[in-house]
Amino acid sequence: MYGPGDVRVEERDDPKIVEPTDAILRISATCVCGSDLWAWRGINRLTEPTPFGHEYCGIVEEIGSEVTSIKVGEFVIGSFFASDNTCPHCRAGYQTSCQHRALMSGCQAEAVRVPLADGTLVATPEVPPKELIPSLLTLSDVAGTGWFAAAAANVQPGMTVAVVGDGAVGLLGVLAAAQLGAERILAMSRHEPRQKLAREYGATEIVTERGDEGVARIKDLTDGIGADAVLECVGTDESMTQAIRSTRPGGFVGFVGVPHGVNVPGELLFSSHVGLLGGPAPVRRFLPDLIDRVWTGKIDPGKVFDLTLPLEQIADGYRAMDDRRAIKAFVLP
Amino acid sequence: MYGPGDVRVEERDDPKIVEPTDAILRISATCVCGSDLWAWRGINRLTEPTPFGHEYCGIVEEIGSEVTSIKVGEFVIGSFFASDNTCPHCRAGYQTSCQHRALMSGCQAEAVRVPLADGTLVATPEVPPKELIPSLLTLSDVAGTGWFAAAAANVQPGMTVAVVGDGAVGLLGVLAAAQLGAERILAMSRHEPRQKLAREYGATEIVTERGDEGVARIKDLTDGIGADAVLECVGTDESMTQAIRSTRPGGFVGFVGVPHGVNVPGELLFSSHVGLLGGPAPVRRFLPDLIDRVWTGKIDPGKVFDLTLPLEQIADGYRAMDDRRAIKAFVLP
Repeated sequence: MYGPGDVRVEERDDPKIVEPTDAILRISATCVCGSDLWAWRGINRLTEPTPFGHEYCGIVEEIGSEVTSIKVGEFVIGSFFASDNTCPHCRAGYQTSCQHRALMSGCQAEAVRVPLADGTLVATPEVPPKELIPSLLTLSDVAGTGWFAAAAANVQPGMTVAVVGDGAVGLLGVLAAAQLGAERILAMSRHEPRQKLAREYGATEIVTERGDEGVARIKDLTDGIGADAVLECVGTDESMTQAIRSTRPGGFVGFVGVPHGVNVPGELLFSSHVGLLGGPAPVRRFLPDLIDRVWTGKIDPGKVFDLTLPLEQIADGYRAMDDRRAIKAFVLP
Repeated sequence: MYGPGDVRVEERDDPKIVEPTDAILRISATCVCGSDLWAWRGINRLTEPTPFGHEYCGIVEEIGSEVTSIKVGEFVIGSFFASDNTCPHCRAGYQTSCQHRALMSGCQAEAVRVPLADGTLVATPEVPPKELIPSLLTLSDVAGTGWFAAAAANVQPGMTVAVVGDGAVGLLGVLAAAQLGAERILAMSRHEPRQKLAREYGATEIVTERGDEGVARIKDLTDGIGADAVLECVGTDESMTQAIRSTRPGGFVGFVGVPHGVNVPGELLFSSHVGLLGGPAPVRRFLPDLIDRVWTGKIDPGKVFDLTLPLEQIADGYRAMDDRRAIKAFVLP
């Protein structure tokens, strides 16, 4: 990424083992994240050309001398944050706050170095058939992030859940809520193809209104009470306020949209009795369970990919997502 | 309350039954709340002289025709918000968000009308001995509020808990955390008499630093991790920020200080992985349990009263609390 709207595919040196805890992966598939668009749009500024991409899965090509839990030749998936998985924050299930965390970058590539390989990577039972790769790739970030939104919002069987945001994370939040037993799932979306996928993933109702009208509609649909749990998957001040105001007293908003200009007024939070929990999703916590659900065919999060491109054309993926012509671009090195 | 610094005791008409769900109480004891001081200080503006006080306990003198759960002659305690205790919010344990809630006022008086008596009031097993009345009175607000702070912060046995604020609510938050099994309780206080009571209530360490230094001290005391749960019992932007920054990832801040100028930056909340839950404490949820704990001598929250005054001198109670000469004024009509 050279700057706003300027993504180039260049030849770079092969990654090498630097620390004895590293692994080198040959990337099977990668993708473009909604959060990558903040830089593409120039809202997040870059000071120099930067290797991009933090979602990855692939075959272990080489391991450092201290790596014990994965083997060369295995197919592995890891979180967008490398983590040791042994520090107090990791043990509490917040691996994205790991005391030794390292943000992954440069995964939109043919190969990548993964630090803290033992703590970060989880192998699948076997090298997967090609058709499972899109779903497995989503577990690196977007599906785990939707899952965390639902977990943080305390989704329980029988609940009514509202989902703010119809990007890939929001859609996979719908899937997570359904898997966690939600009885009603109110998906807030104005885009027909996304509404369709939301329904496939378990949404029982679609809410097209936004802002005050969106809140009023959620209240209408819940006898004036509000949703039991709300997933905030956008990250703007408006979406956060909408999420809080749509939640019943004692209910939780799970928020995973990277916040841009969000300020939560203390009075709103106090008077609404709504709880908040969120942040960068500790997808490492969910990886073993989600790999199993994909492997056994219980979930198919890979459906969020509606555009497939070779790595050389990845800039088209950024462009299509920015224009909302594509939900999410699947990229093959 | 006529205005800032101007509290007068006046003769007023006796309260009367208005609705068939009302009860009239002869007040046994009342008190001054930290939140009453916002008006005393002129920060909350009054447009006209207003009967004050929302903490009360007393003997039932009269009941409306539809009241069934309490009897004339019983000693009762109720929350600072009247509630029906049957609506969906009440059933979820958030009686201060009751669909029919009514904020109590004018309890700094000899008698008061309580709406929704069946939902609001809880009777003690018998008319209590005089020495139990201070502790029972605290259950109307301040002890229940400290309890909610601990419950909202998800205090569990074995946890390390920090308490921001050494007012009566903060001190009773210490008591609640100890009752809920906290192993270490870090009380943030600079006032010696309050530090002493905090220790009596179960604080294991006292932190005198504030702001950045207070956060650093909590981190030092927890091996750099942060407290498992933090009780925010002040309500300023500084205290809320301090509370969030003192909490470990995945931990909760239970906030009960009425917010004045609090704005929580989305970035702070997102990057810290700290959960927030708070609001006006649903003390009605805790009343039966807390009455039992007082009745059986397990807790003595009445120790927060360090000044006793007859109703005629209640203005001295406001003054002493505003000057921090008294923690909390106990007032006898």
